[in-house]
Amino acid sequence: VRVALLGLGLIGGSIARALARAGASWQVVAWSPTGSGPASAAADGTAQAAGTPEDAIGGADLVVLAGPPLACLELVERVAAILGPNRDRAVVTDVASTKAVIVERGRAAGLRFVGGHPMAGREHAGYRASVADLFAGRPWVVVPGDPDDTEARDRVEAMAVACGGRPVVMTAANHDTAVAAISHLPLVLSAALVETVAGAADWSSVRGLAAGGWDGMSRLARGDVEMGTGILATNGPAVAERLAALRDAIDGWLADLGADEPDVDRLRARLAAARRLAGPIE
Amino acid sequence: VRVALLGLGLIGGSIARALARAGASWQVVAWSPTGSGPASAAADGTAQAAGTPEDAIGGADLVVLAGPPLACLELVERVAAILGPNRDRAVVTDVASTKAVIVERGRAAGLRFVGGHPMAGREHAGYRASVADLFAGRPWVVVPGDPDDTEARDRVEAMAVACGGRPVVMTAANHDTAVAAISHLPLVLSAALVETVAGAADWSSVRGLAAGGWDGMSRLARGDVEMGTGILATNGPAVAERLAALRDAIDGWLADLGADEPDVDRLRARLAAARRLAGPIE
Repeated sequence: VRVALLGLGLIGGSIARALARAGASWQVVAWSPTGSGPASAAADGTAQAAGTPEDAIGGADLVVLAGPPLACLELVERVAAILGPNRDRAVVTDVASTKAVIVERGRAAGLRFVGGHPMAGREHAGYRASVADLFAGRPWVVVPGDPDDTEARDRVEAMAVACGGRPVVMTAANHDTAVAAISHLPLVLSAALVETVAGAADWSSVRGLAAGGWDGMSRLARGDVEMGTGILATNGPAVAERLAALRDAIDGWLADLGADEPDVDRLRARLAAARRLAGPIE
Repeated sequence: VRVALLGLGLIGGSIARALARAGASWQVVAWSPTGSGPASAAADGTAQAAGTPEDAIGGADLVVLAGPPLACLELVERVAAILGPNRDRAVVTDVASTKAVIVERGRAAGLRFVGGHPMAGREHAGYRASVADLFAGRPWVVVPGDPDDTEARDRVEAMAVACGGRPVVMTAANHDTAVAAISHLPLVLSAALVETVAGAADWSSVRGLAAGGWDGMSRLARGDVEMGTGILATNGPAVAERLAALRDAIDGWLADLGADEPDVDRLRARLAAARRLAGPIE
């Protein structure tokens, strides 16, 4: 199977490394806007480097859009133009964190598009941070653009499996609602916490006392800005819906914490219930 | 210096271990309600075990209330009754996460009370989790009940230094406002996130996709319930004030995310500003 990776950072690089390890039946050609990831991958024998998207895509069975979310979106039409009459031959997938917008765009461009989202990551970005076992045992969400094109879906699932991932077929709407809850809402919350605390007038005198709790809760806000922007730009309504529910929970906490006399039993019950819901730390 | 530890979990145990390492000038006697920590400490040579608070406190220069926040509060009058006419001789301190309520209570009980809050912790609780270097290099907030009693303050600071900590003298109000921001607000936020997401109807289908971001943001809500209850019961107004500010930040995010057309530049600028405020991940 000939795979063209457009983008070779953490995710693209980890796909390349995993496929290189999976065996000779996978041939990977990689292109990226800067060319630095592909150059490194060529040097270390992980993938062939292509100088242009055209060179990478020529003869590919599977084209993987592996840039940041907004960059993947912008590549859709470009890939369609490059494939031209070969649109029926190649399957196109992506790794972006939201699925409805890009799957619709792939469909509209006439591509055999199957959305993908490997649920894996690391804090550090770039090809240098990529590892062959990033996807091992992790869900790899697969969102078929055309449910009847089972061959296209199979091709993407085969790559996910070759990377060690666990394909999970979902609709774009179900995926985007789910990740809004467990991934994108936490990002917004982390940013809102930082805005509130680190943006307050007394931050310079407060920050010296910060410990593990603060580090953990501000971590997502300290992550990659382009990734976060792409996520929120393409999943705003689903995130807003979860955020509105969270606002209600906060209103409840405001009432409990602002009481003239603390209701200790109520505070304890509420914390205990949250702990039960999430499961204790292992 | 003879130190009586009332409570010998993670914090009390780590104080005992640090003082045992600090040398023979520190003698530690420990009591706890269950007796299990002191029995272990006696067995491993870290501290003497006392069967009652009276036995532990007899002859102590420094009494350390080292239980969960509400347990420390309840010990204040008991310690005052046990000390009786020796109230002028012994200095009493604590390790609770909030300072205004307990320092006022110590003062009202006629104790030479100096509030303390070592800014250190681990995820696991109990004497078994205690380590001698828990406080190494960390701030140890010191809140004098009587600013004129410098000898009392010195005695607590000397213990903090012997434990490897960095004494930081603050007023109770400044301390409680600061930790409301960097420690207690994150706890409430984590609980509210869990209530919203893990309490939603679709949680069972969503949880399988959860990854590092969710784990990090739900971590505080999965911590010790008694600790959290004591914190929120004794610092409600300060936490509520920060939470109200956070609610305003969330309202701003709701407006940005709910827009008909995403304003990509605005989303990017807001995430970039939060990242700048908190500092990137090192």
